[in-house]
Amino acid sequence: MASLIDWLLPQRLYVVPALLLASLASSNHLRSDEGMYPISELGRLNLQNRGLELTPDQVFNPQQISLVDGICKVNGCTGSFVSDQGLIITNHHCAFDAIQQASLPDRDLLKLGFQARSRSEEIPAPNYTVRITQQYFDVSDSVLQVVDSEMSPLERSRVIERKRKELELQYEKEYPGWRAEVAEMFAGKTYVLFLYTFLRDVRLVFAPPLSVGNFGGEVDNWEWPRHTGDFAFMRAYTAPDGSSAPYAPENIAYRPKRVLTVAPQGVDEDEFVFILGYPGRTVRHRTASFLRYERDVRLPLLVEFNQWQIGVMEEAGRANREVAIKHSTRMKSLANVEKRSRGQLQGLRRARIVETKSEREVELLNFIHQDPARTEKYGNVLTEIESIYQEMAKQGEFEHYVRELRTACRLLSFAFTICDAVHERSKPDLDRETPYMDRNFALTKTQLLQDVKDWDPSTDRLMLCGVLKRLRDIAASQEWSELLPWLNCDSIENEAMHALFEGTRLGEPSTIEAWINMSPEELAETGDPAIRTMLSLYPKYLQLRMKDKEREGSLGRLYGMLIELEEQFSPATFVPDANSTLRITYGNVRGYSPGDAAWKSPISTVQGIVEKNSGMEPFDAPEILLEAIRQRDFGPFLHPRLNSVPVAILYSTDTTGGNSGSPVLNGRGELVGVNFDRTFEATINDFAWKESYSRSIGVDIRYVLWITGHVYGATHLLDEMGVPK
Amino acid sequence: MASLIDWLLPQRLYVVPALLLASLASSNHLRSDEGMYPISELGRLNLQNRGLELTPDQVFNPQQISLVDGICKVNGCTGSFVSDQGLIITNHHCAFDAIQQASLPDRDLLKLGFQARSRSEEIPAPNYTVRITQQYFDVSDSVLQVVDSEMSPLERSRVIERKRKELELQYEKEYPGWRAEVAEMFAGKTYVLFLYTFLRDVRLVFAPPLSVGNFGGEVDNWEWPRHTGDFAFMRAYTAPDGSSAPYAPENIAYRPKRVLTVAPQGVDEDEFVFILGYPGRTVRHRTASFLRYERDVRLPLLVEFNQWQIGVMEEAGRANREVAIKHSTRMKSLANVEKRSRGQLQGLRRARIVETKSEREVELLNFIHQDPARTEKYGNVLTEIESIYQEMAKQGEFEHYVRELRTACRLLSFAFTICDAVHERSKPDLDRETPYMDRNFALTKTQLLQDVKDWDPSTDRLMLCGVLKRLRDIAASQEWSELLPWLNCDSIENEAMHALFEGTRLGEPSTIEAWINMSPEELAETGDPAIRTMLSLYPKYLQLRMKDKEREGSLGRLYGMLIELEEQFSPATFVPDANSTLRITYGNVRGYSPGDAAWKSPISTVQGIVEKNSGMEPFDAPEILLEAIRQRDFGPFLHPRLNSVPVAILYSTDTTGGNSGSPVLNGRGELVGVNFDRTFEATINDFAWKESYSRSIGVDIRYVLWITGHVYGATHLLDEMGVPK
Repeated sequence: MASLIDWLLPQRLYVVPALLLASLASSNHLRSDEGMYPISELGRLNLQNRGLELTPDQVFNPQQISLVDGICKVNGCTGSFVSDQGLIITNHHCAFDAIQQASLPDRDLLKLGFQARSRSEEIPAPNYTVRITQQYFDVSDSVLQVVDSEMSPLERSRVIERKRKELELQYEKEYPGWRAEVAEMFAGKTYVLFLYTFLRDVRLVFAPPLSVGNFGGEVDNWEWPRHTGDFAFMRAYTAPDGSSAPYAPENIAYRPKRVLTVAPQGVDEDEFVFILGYPGRTVRHRTASFLRYERDVRLPLLVEFNQWQIGVMEEAGRANREVAIKHSTRMKSLANVEKRSRGQLQGLRRARIVETKSEREVELLNFIHQDPARTEKYGNVLTEIESIYQEMAKQGEFEHYVRELRTACRLLSFAFTICDAVHERSKPDLDRETPYMDRNFALTKTQLLQDVKDWDPSTDRLMLCGVLKRLRDIAASQEWSELLPWLNCDSIENEAMHALFEGTRLGEPSTIEAWINMSPEELAETGDPAIRTMLSLYPKYLQLRMKDKEREGSLGRLYGMLIELEEQFSPATFVPDANSTLRITYGNVRGYSPGDAAWKSPISTVQGIVEKNSGMEPFDAPEILLEAIRQRDFGPFLHPRLNSVPVAILYSTDTTGGNSGSPVLNGRGELVGVNFDRTFEATINDFAWKESYSRSIGVDIRYVLWITGHVYGATHLLDEMGVPK
Repeated sequence: MASLIDWLLPQRLYVVPALLLASLASSNHLRSDEGMYPISELGRLNLQNRGLELTPDQVFNPQQISLVDGICKVNGCTGSFVSDQGLIITNHHCAFDAIQQASLPDRDLLKLGFQARSRSEEIPAPNYTVRITQQYFDVSDSVLQVVDSEMSPLERSRVIERKRKELELQYEKEYPGWRAEVAEMFAGKTYVLFLYTFLRDVRLVFAPPLSVGNFGGEVDNWEWPRHTGDFAFMRAYTAPDGSSAPYAPENIAYRPKRVLTVAPQGVDEDEFVFILGYPGRTVRHRTASFLRYERDVRLPLLVEFNQWQIGVMEEAGRANREVAIKHSTRMKSLANVEKRSRGQLQGLRRARIVETKSEREVELLNFIHQDPARTEKYGNVLTEIESIYQEMAKQGEFEHYVRELRTACRLLSFAFTICDAVHERSKPDLDRETPYMDRNFALTKTQLLQDVKDWDPSTDRLMLCGVLKRLRDIAASQEWSELLPWLNCDSIENEAMHALFEGTRLGEPSTIEAWINMSPEELAETGDPAIRTMLSLYPKYLQLRMKDKEREGSLGRLYGMLIELEEQFSPATFVPDANSTLRITYGNVRGYSPGDAAWKSPISTVQGIVEKNSGMEPFDAPEILLEAIRQRDFGPFLHPRLNSVPVAILYSTDTTGGNSGSPVLNGRGELVGVNFDRTFEATINDFAWKESYSRSIGVDIRYVLWITGHVYGATHLLDEMGVPK
C-alpha cells in the first residue's frame, strides 16, 4: 500500500486516486469554506451568493471553452496560462527542479535568477509535463465489476489495479494524443477517469533569484506573514502541427484554448477569492486509529530521519557549492516535508482532532448497534481497520528504514529502479507496475537520469551508514539474512562500503541507459556491486510490495464499507479527499489568530522584506530589490491603504500540496495571486480543516508584476500578458 | 577583561559594576520609556505625570522605610517580600537551582513541584543569598585618585580593582553585618558603593511543577504570547537575634522592613506599571566596532558552541533521568543564553543598529574636528577602541575555546578553580582575585561543591573531546606546547582521556574540601591527573587573565574619555548601562507588532494553555490544571473582559537579565506581576532599546494566586500574603 506510506511525498505519475459524484450532499449542507470540491460539484455550491460573478458553465464546460482550459497541471503542481503563446505562471518552487537542472557551478541560475530575453533563450525542462483537464467519466461500475467478495485482499488490489490500467489504455486509444488517468475518489467505492491534454516540451522563461523566490527559506516556509516571491514563468510547446511532442528545436508555443486575465489591481482584505487546481492528497475520511498511527509512528519517524538527512546534506554542501546545487532540490523537498510533518504532529498532538474523531466513531458505533442487520454487516469495520494500523505500527520502524535504505541511499535507489525495471519489463505491459508500462517508461528513465546527475557519492556513503545504523538497532533486521553482512557497516571507511561505492558503474548515465533495458539474466551478469547487493535484497522489497497491496486491498474494502455507513449515518458532511484531480475551493482574503493573544493580518508588504533582511541567507534580498523599495519605485502596483506594494496574501480557502502554483482568482475569474503555501497551523488541514485557522498563502499579483517588470525589467512579459506597466 | 567576555553569563559575585549621578540629563530630555534609571534619578523622572501615585520618597528613602526595602536581590535575580515573615516571590527559573539541588531520582521536585506544608518542611538552598539595598555613596573620587596617566593599562586595572576592594572592606568594617559592593556606573568614570543587608539562609517554600513553571520550555522562551507560570516562593531566615547567618535549624524568619502589597485584581491593558530590580548588564554606550565584534565574532561562536553542548547533554539525558536532572540547571542556562544570543544576532543583522551607531560616530568625529584642542585630546579615541576589538576579534576563536576548555569541560573547570584558589589564597587577602577573598571564599566553595555533585563524567568526556577538536583546527593552538599532547585526543576512548577521567579524585566532595585548602606545593604532590593537566595549562590562563585586565584597563580609560566627549556633544541622552545595581524602569501594559502584518496583544489567558498543550514536554500541563480550566474553577481571578484567567502580561518597560523575578507594580506600588522575560525582538535591548518592539514579560499575579491557592491548594500562602481566596 504505497499510497498509505507515500501519500505525503510528491505525487507520482501512477498515483491517480478519487470523486464521489452522486453521493455528495446537497449544497445547503456543505460547510462554510471547507472543501476541495470536484469540479462537477460547482453547480451545487451556489458561489454566486458568495461573490462569484461567473456561471458554473463559464468555469467548467467540457463542451465549450471555459476557465478550466486556462489552468494546467505542471508535474505535481498547478499553473495558469497567462498568454496565448503558452506562457504559464506557477511557483518558483515548482520550477525549482528545472532551474537547478539548468544551473552549472559557474552559472548558478538558482542564485542569479533567469530571464530569457527571447524564445530561443528559454531552457528546456525535460522532466516536466503539462496536463489540461478535458473530460471525465465515472467508471466505478467498470472498475468494481472485477471485484468479487471471495477475493483475498491482495487479489482484490491486483484486479482493481489491472482494470484501471486497462481503462486508461482503452481511453487513450479512443482519444489519441490525450492522457487518461483513473482516479479513486472514495477508496473502494468510486472511480473517475480523467482525460488530459498532455504536453511534454516545457521550458523555463523567467525566475527571480532564490533570494526573492525563496526569501525566508525554510525559516519562513509554512509560516505567515510571508515575504516570498514564489513565482516563475514557464512555457509549453507542441510539435509544429500542434500535437504533443517531446522537446525539439522546431516546436512551437502551445496555444491554450483559454488565457487567464491578469488583474494588476490585485485584491483587498475580505474580498471573495477562489482557486482552481490539482490538490494532491488529504486523508479526512480516515479513522482515529489511522490518526494515532500517524501521530505516534509515521510522522515522528519521518521528522527525525528527514532532519538527520538534511543535516548531513547541509554539512556536505557547506564546503562545496557544486555539491550544494546537486542536493538543493532533494533538500528542499525533505525540508518541506519535515516542517509540514512537524506542523501536523503539533496539530495532532495539540488540537482535539483524534479525540473528535474518536467521539464521532463512538456515535457511529451506537448507530450501527441500533440495527441488528447493520451490526451484522458493519459491526467489525472499525476494529478491522484498527487492527491493520496496529500491524503497520508494529512493523513501522523497520519498514520505514527498509524503504529509506533504497530512498535515502541514492545508489541503492538507482540500483532498485534498474532491478525493478528489468524485472517488471520482462512481463506483459498490463502486468507491470505503473512506472514501467510503455506509456510511462520514458519519464521514469528521464527522472532516473536526472537523479544520477545529482548523485554525490561521498554524501551517499553517510546516508547508507545512517540507515544501516538505525536498522541495526531494530530486532526485525536481524531476521533478514541478506541484510546481516551490512548491519555492521556503519563506517564510511568500511571495506564493503568502499567496494560498493568504488566498484559500481551506476554513476554513469550511459550505464543506466544500457542496463535498464537488459534482461534479468544480463543484469545479474554485470557483477556490479550495487546491482548485486540490490538483487540480494530485492525479494524482500517484492514481499513488502505485496504486503502494501494486501493492506491496500483490505483497507479499500473496509473504507468502502465505512463510506456506505457514513452515507446512512450523516450524508450531509461529505466531500471526497483530494487526489490530484481538478478541484475548486473558495474563501475570502482574511487574517486569523494563530492562538491566544496574537493576530495576523492578511496582506504583507515589501516593508516586511526590509525588516527581515539580514544580508544572510535566507534573508538576503538582492540589492536591486532593496534599492527599488528605498526609492519607492512602485509604479502602478502600490496598495493605496497600505501605502506599499503587497507581497503576499492570506485567504480562507482549503488547499493542499498540489495546489502549489494554483491561480488565486477574484469573483470575475481574474488572476490576483499565485497560491504557494499554507500556514503552520494549517498543515493539519490534510487531516482536518477548520475555519478559524486554516489559511492558504499566495504571492500577490502586484508583487509578481512589480518584480518581473520593474525590478528585473522583463517588461516584454508584462506586454505578453497584456498588463499595463 | 572578563566582564567583556562574560557579560552575558550569569552575574558573578565579583561583577559589581556602575551609576552616573551628576551627569544625568534633566528629566525633560529623557526618552519616553527607555532607561533602567538608577534609583537616585527617581525625582527627576516626574513619574506622577505618567501614572505613579507615590512620591519618590515613598519609593526610596535610605533614612526611612520605603518600597525598596520590600525588594531584594536573590543571587542574580530580583525578588519581593510579600509577607512580614520573609516570604519572597521570585521566578521559578530563579529558584530552579534550589529545586534541582533538592531533587533526588525518586523525588524529582522539578517534575512534581514542591510545597512546604509547614516551616519545617522548607528546604535550604545553601548557595542562595538575599541582598536588600540600604544605602549608596559616590566613591568616584576615591577610586580614581589612585590612577595616574602614566600607568600601563594593566597597572591601571590593578590599582582600580585593589582600591574597590579596599573600599568594600572599609565600609563593611564601618557597617558591620552589611555587604558593601563598589559598582562602576560609567566605565573609567563613575563608581558608587552600595551597602546591602546580606542574608545567607534562604529556603524553598513553594514551586509549581516544571510543566507549569516552565510550560513552553525553550520553545516559548524569549517569545510572546507566553503561558508560563514562572514563579516560586522562597523564604529568608536570620539568626535568632536577627543577624545574618548561614543555615541553622534554629534560625528565624527574616522580618523585612517593608512588605509589598499584593493586588489580586491585577492590571489591565494600557495601565501604567513600573519595575524595581537589579538588571544585570547592558552595553548601550559601546562603539560600532564593539557591535561588529559581537555580531561577527563572539555571538556566532557562542550560539554554535552552546547548541552543540545542549545537543550532547540532551542525548545523554534521554537515556538516564538521573543524568538529565544533573544537567538541568546548566542546560537551561546554556539554552537561555543561546536563544537570547540568537535573537541578538538577528537583531544586529536585521535592525540598523550598527549603521545607526556608525552614523552617530561620524557626527561625533565631525564634532571632535571642529576644535583643535578636542582633536588633540579625543581624535584617536574611536580608532584606539576599534583596534582593541580588532585584536580581540583576531584572537576571538582561540580564546573562546581556551575558555571553554575550562568551562564546558567540568572536570577541568573543577581543577582550574582548585589550582586558582590554591594559588590565589597563598597571597594577602587584598591581592587575591575577588572569589578567593575571605569574604567570598565560602560561597565560591559551596558553588564548586554543587557543581561537583552535578558532574557526569561520561558526558564530560564528550565535552572535552568537542573542545579539543575545535582547538585543533585553530593555528594558535599549535603554539601552545602544553596543549599539544591533547590536541589529537578526540576520541572518548583515547588512552590519555581514559587515564584522566579514571584517575582523578576530583569527583569526590571530600577531595575538593581537602585540596582547596592546600598549599601550591601540596597540591602539586597529589599527582592527580586532572590537577597535573591543569597545572601545566595554568600559566596560559594567567596570561589570559592579564590580557583581559590589560584590555579592561585600556577600554576603561578610552570609554571614560568617550563619556567626557559625549557629555560635551549631547548630554541629554544619557542613562548609565545596567550593572546589577538597583534600578527603576516604567511603561505601560501594551501589545506590539513583531513585524509586517502581525500584532500581539498584551494579556495571555489560560485558554492558550489548552491550545498549546500537547501532553508532551514542554507542553505537558498537569491534568489538575487542565481540569481546573475545564471546570472554569477561577475563583475571584477571572478577567471580566477576557472571561478567563490571565497568565502573563506584556509591557513596555526596559529590562534585562537580572530583572528576572522583579516585581511589576501598579501606580500605587502594589504587586500585579512578576517579571520573567523579554520578547525575542527585545533581546537586542541589551544593545539598543526601541519603543516599537522592546517589551518585557511577566507572570500575572492572578495566575500566581490561582495556581498557588486554587489549583495546588496552598491557601496558607494566600493567607500569609493577606490575599482573599
